[in-house]
Amino acid sequence: MAQNKIGKQSFHPAEPVCISNWASIAGKKEAEGPLGHLFDLTDTDTKFGEKTWEQAEKKMQQLALQTLLKKANLKNSDLDVVFSGDLLNQCIGSSFTLRNTGIPHIGLYGACSTMAESLLLATMTAGGGYADKVVAMTSSHFASSERQYRFPLGYGGQRTPTAQWTVTGSGAALVERKHGTVELTSATVGTVTDLGLTDATNMGCAMAPAAFQTIRAHFDDTHTAPEDFDLIVTGDLGSLGKEVLMYLFRKEGISIGGKITDCGNLVFDAPKQDVHAGGSGCGCSAIVLCSELLSKLQSGKLKKILFCGTGALLSPTSTQQNLPIPGVCHGVCIESRR
Amino acid sequence: MAQNKIGKQSFHPAEPVCISNWASIAGKKEAEGPLGHLFDLTDTDTKFGEKTWEQAEKKMQQLALQTLLKKANLKNSDLDVVFSGDLLNQCIGSSFTLRNTGIPHIGLYGACSTMAESLLLATMTAGGGYADKVVAMTSSHFASSERQYRFPLGYGGQRTPTAQWTVTGSGAALVERKHGTVELTSATVGTVTDLGLTDATNMGCAMAPAAFQTIRAHFDDTHTAPEDFDLIVTGDLGSLGKEVLMYLFRKEGISIGGKITDCGNLVFDAPKQDVHAGGSGCGCSAIVLCSELLSKLQSGKLKKILFCGTGALLSPTSTQQNLPIPGVCHGVCIESRR
Repeated sequence: MAQNKIGKQSFHPAEPVCISNWASIAGKKEAEGPLGHLFDLTDTDTKFGEKTWEQAEKKMQQLALQTLLKKANLKNSDLDVVFSGDLLNQCIGSSFTLRNTGIPHIGLYGACSTMAESLLLATMTAGGGYADKVVAMTSSHFASSERQYRFPLGYGGQRTPTAQWTVTGSGAALVERKHGTVELTSATVGTVTDLGLTDATNMGCAMAPAAFQTIRAHFDDTHTAPEDFDLIVTGDLGSLGKEVLMYLFRKEGISIGGKITDCGNLVFDAPKQDVHAGGSGCGCSAIVLCSELLSKLQSGKLKKILFCGTGALLSPTSTQQNLPIPGVCHGVCIESRR
Repeated sequence: MAQNKIGKQSFHPAEPVCISNWASIAGKKEAEGPLGHLFDLTDTDTKFGEKTWEQAEKKMQQLALQTLLKKANLKNSDLDVVFSGDLLNQCIGSSFTLRNTGIPHIGLYGACSTMAESLLLATMTAGGGYADKVVAMTSSHFASSERQYRFPLGYGGQRTPTAQWTVTGSGAALVERKHGTVELTSATVGTVTDLGLTDATNMGCAMAPAAFQTIRAHFDDTHTAPEDFDLIVTGDLGSLGKEVLMYLFRKEGISIGGKITDCGNLVFDAPKQDVHAGGSGCGCSAIVLCSELLSKLQSGKLKKILFCGTGALLSPTSTQQNLPIPGVCHGVCIESRR
């Protein structure tokens, strides 16, 4: 068997891999939320000085990358590869960000699991000696998502109580092939899991079975249990999806309640900010990770977390064709060496 | 420096990696083309028995995966990971194919470069000891692409002379961590390259600079020259993009003419089949690789090729917003050990 594979879905890096720097960019509503003071840069202009929301998303990724490089005292040419993706059709947020930068780029599509997916591949790549400096990055934007997936904003459509609010933000993490204070120690590749839910306004619940499958696989593969982690952080299940996830664990007789937290719940004060079931979008788990979570790992307040990005792999076309909503969840275990 | 990295953009696998099996599924027009007799399965029904073209694309990927597993005498649970992506918004061809199969899945978006992108990551993953058996897979469909990127087919829009014809097909390759007759020996990660072209009906020319950049980087990084390869196969530049690519090499004083061939030119008899500048789509390079090219490497008729998937990273939204067309090209070097 492959020597760095663990169990059925997991692996550890062949050599030590750390997250040495990170950056987060966020919009106005996110700045007003509970983590607002932790983001590197926020803007009250929803277009970030650009002409369109799609270009604003590109701008946020550019700012995330620039901020990250500045913190790390690096330039574009020091990077070996950037793994990134976003929610826009054909991932134009990512490709226009990397355009003519000269940085090798691998484009991903994992819906809102992208931050975990890119970190997982960065772990593999740096840990396998294929690269020294890798960036994992993603973004999402409330307005570009609303018009692409749901309704034009000007239409003023009602939001269901189960709906989540797409985060406007971008997060980027620098993964390096060396020991560090914050290390990526294992990862679990998700399977596409679908229990047949079709309500595109309740994606948290549609993604919960995928999160359950991946977290369960991580425990099995790495011989760990909930008590081995300070936190198990899901990407953006929101309040309803989180309940389903906890129900699935209870049904299996696994006590996980106190360990689970969700980026969609952390990023907004849901009742006060009127975001219904919580935050969502690739940018949601990205900016929560690249602010509060990594800082707490850096300072040693958190010792070991399982960061699980969750993605709903639907499209407006699949919804119109009455197809269910497949989910995926990728997990990376991040540990503090402080 | 990372020990498996070569030069600026390239790497070789840490351990030997081979392509042990492959499968190709194609539509009616592709079956009538010069390679028609080489595909594993073709269908005259453009919907492959499904209700929609999008679901037909899923069906083709399912058939490609099933055919591949049958050839290799494997089942779903023998696979460690599938890397796949497609052109449909949110890559629903790939996610619905992997849905509830239990196979770990990493979703990619690289437009028509996806076959090379997935092979590159499979090389990294298997070569790094993270997996023993990895599948690289992609698909495209003429009808789903036309309506998503261009016009509804019923509209009967005129096609420009520079237009390419999206291939209906899916290709899958099994990458294993061991020596074999056909080995993946190095790969080059592309950069997003854009010379400012904006004509979305001439994507071959828009992608040519990216192909040039990657092939050039591969030569530099691996200390090779055109004469070291039997063939340098680009994904789908078509006849016009190929001319631009050859011009760019001539300008640099590199004689490459006789070595370059393009999957978009190989898959159709352009004048006879009225496909204007040639074939395109993720499925184009996938079915050409997973039929003629890999067979010729298996038999030793080809000794060493550089397979370069080329992708145009535009979206209908970026075109409507008057943005240029960024291109990307990933390259994998495949060698015959016969």
